[in-house]
Amino acid sequence: MPVPILESNEYRTAQGITFRGSSNGRILKSSFQKSLGPDEVVVKVTHSGVCGTDLHYMMQDMVLGHEAVGVVSSVGSACTIFKPGDRVGWGYEHYSCGSCTPCLTNEECHCLKAGYYGASDFDQGSFSDIGVWKEKWLFRIPDGIKSEDAAPLMCGGASCFSPLIEHCRPIDRVGIVGMGGLGHLAIQFAVKMGCEVVVFSRSESKHTDALALGASAFYDIQHVPSDFSSLGITKPIDRLIITAASLVDISQFYPVLSRKAIVIPLTATKETLSVPYYDTLYNGVKIIPSMLSTRYMQTKMLEFAERHKICPIIEKFPMTEAGIVAAIEKLKNGQIRYRAVLSWDYSNSRD
Amino acid sequence: MPVPILESNEYRTAQGITFRGSSNGRILKSSFQKSLGPDEVVVKVTHSGVCGTDLHYMMQDMVLGHEAVGVVSSVGSACTIFKPGDRVGWGYEHYSCGSCTPCLTNEECHCLKAGYYGASDFDQGSFSDIGVWKEKWLFRIPDGIKSEDAAPLMCGGASCFSPLIEHCRPIDRVGIVGMGGLGHLAIQFAVKMGCEVVVFSRSESKHTDALALGASAFYDIQHVPSDFSSLGITKPIDRLIITAASLVDISQFYPVLSRKAIVIPLTATKETLSVPYYDTLYNGVKIIPSMLSTRYMQTKMLEFAERHKICPIIEKFPMTEAGIVAAIEKLKNGQIRYRAVLSWDYSNSRD
Repeated sequence: MPVPILESNEYRTAQGITFRGSSNGRILKSSFQKSLGPDEVVVKVTHSGVCGTDLHYMMQDMVLGHEAVGVVSSVGSACTIFKPGDRVGWGYEHYSCGSCTPCLTNEECHCLKAGYYGASDFDQGSFSDIGVWKEKWLFRIPDGIKSEDAAPLMCGGASCFSPLIEHCRPIDRVGIVGMGGLGHLAIQFAVKMGCEVVVFSRSESKHTDALALGASAFYDIQHVPSDFSSLGITKPIDRLIITAASLVDISQFYPVLSRKAIVIPLTATKETLSVPYYDTLYNGVKIIPSMLSTRYMQTKMLEFAERHKICPIIEKFPMTEAGIVAAIEKLKNGQIRYRAVLSWDYSNSRD
Repeated sequence: MPVPILESNEYRTAQGITFRGSSNGRILKSSFQKSLGPDEVVVKVTHSGVCGTDLHYMMQDMVLGHEAVGVVSSVGSACTIFKPGDRVGWGYEHYSCGSCTPCLTNEECHCLKAGYYGASDFDQGSFSDIGVWKEKWLFRIPDGIKSEDAAPLMCGGASCFSPLIEHCRPIDRVGIVGMGGLGHLAIQFAVKMGCEVVVFSRSESKHTDALALGASAFYDIQHVPSDFSSLGITKPIDRLIITAASLVDISQFYPVLSRKAIVIPLTATKETLSVPYYDTLYNGVKIIPSMLSTRYMQTKMLEFAERHKICPIIEKFPMTEAGIVAAIEKLKNGQIRYRAVLSWDYSNSRD
């Protein structure tokens, strides 16, 4: 029997962005009702990151947002982990079956029945006042991390942390390609893992920030014509993490890669990936795209971020129609430094 | 045809310690002659660490010392890496065949024909004015590391760095057991790898130093009676590195280990290792002793130490009969904080 547990309205901006809640920060009565399963938790959203992936789904009929942080307001009858008042977050994946081969082999982000943002649960997103999700796909936010900083970690942070831990060693020289929401976090994670980190970016204006975050070198590749041998890199790159919003020409980096280098594209795109085959073979280069993160790695990422005081650099916007539109517009124009975070203003709330 | 290339005397102290050179720091004519192979390098020693392993061989008829740093004085005809004037070091291993299975599988420290300190080349050691070794088993000292600091890295540093890189991830909580020459370096390496580090020691007097080196907790286990559940450790230890000079009772740590923990004894001893079998099985604990380091890892260790400004804490002694005896005596009494380093005084040398 469905139980009405939510009070929320669906909104659509003039730009076509769908979100839930109220534009004045108050919770309103809504037609949005959902039964609370025994293993589900109701989260009152306080913050949401705005990720490049949100742009992909902007014109779809779905509530946007997948970097949520909020507070548990109620829990289903079979929940054992969280209780009302707990601070939690959710990310890109919100369901895994638990019994397919990927699930059984610590690859639950490749679950054959995975629930991903943009592919299921279109009536829910983090540009919202509330969410209802499986308890096991919620993550406790450590006390040492502010909610506004935790939001970008839920997808952007986890997506770059996971391959860093899996494929990069503290003795590696790591190249980060692109310095946006993911890239500026990848720099910090890799530095705190003891790696030597260099940044490749098309924005010379980010040079100072890159060094401040711990990178040892910054290469502006905006005007480099063909391959990057002209950059004067004498010490080759062992691991190359591609965080750019669209695919880069990987072959440009081949002259600066070490033998047996690993190239790790994190870009979410449906473009074709093309690489020079013989050079890949001859140099023993591995290309290992990485998507999302296991729950284990998500948990470890939050612990690591707290322990090493790793914070996203954020621009804050109100979780209102105007705030959402402003954040999305700035992101589309490549002007966010480095992650937009929407937040509810509950100070005038009747809640 | 043997070529006389060395000028050195052998000395034996009243305590039975064998070393080479001259007790007043000058190089003397010697009976020690050795032909210089085409792939061999002559190193004029400037510094040597004093390691617990040296105590094992104190009464054997051999020159002591295996943590050498010095300057190349001449090279064999087939040498391609070093030239006179280069600053280099050597460690515990000084020969590998290059063609047995361990050598061919990146395990050259387990070479079937390995030349180890204490097992071959008894006429050479780093308590000496000079050494002649295979070029490929010498290591360039990075410019950012002082020779006196580099010496303890050549064996102590490499021996703990190698298993840290091989078995420990930046997300792991690492326990270091024993805080001597190896332990105080292991703390620094693990901290710079991003690990959370806790120290178990019998010397409460080292507590402050442990925290200053980056450990998050220090447990004095001197008077803990049986197992360590009484220590109040709520967050289990994922990796346990045993650096103590003699074997510890590993079972005491079982209550504070995580499931699937890895225990890594580095202790060099001929004692019997005993563990409770069922608890090892049930908790999925792996016991992986680690000995020495590949040349690759030795090189990476030096790079890592330079990059992260990792330094041993040393006590300096002159490379004289009196200096050697004083260092050895203090080490035997457990009073060295944390590594003794012998150094030649060439200021009055005729060399």
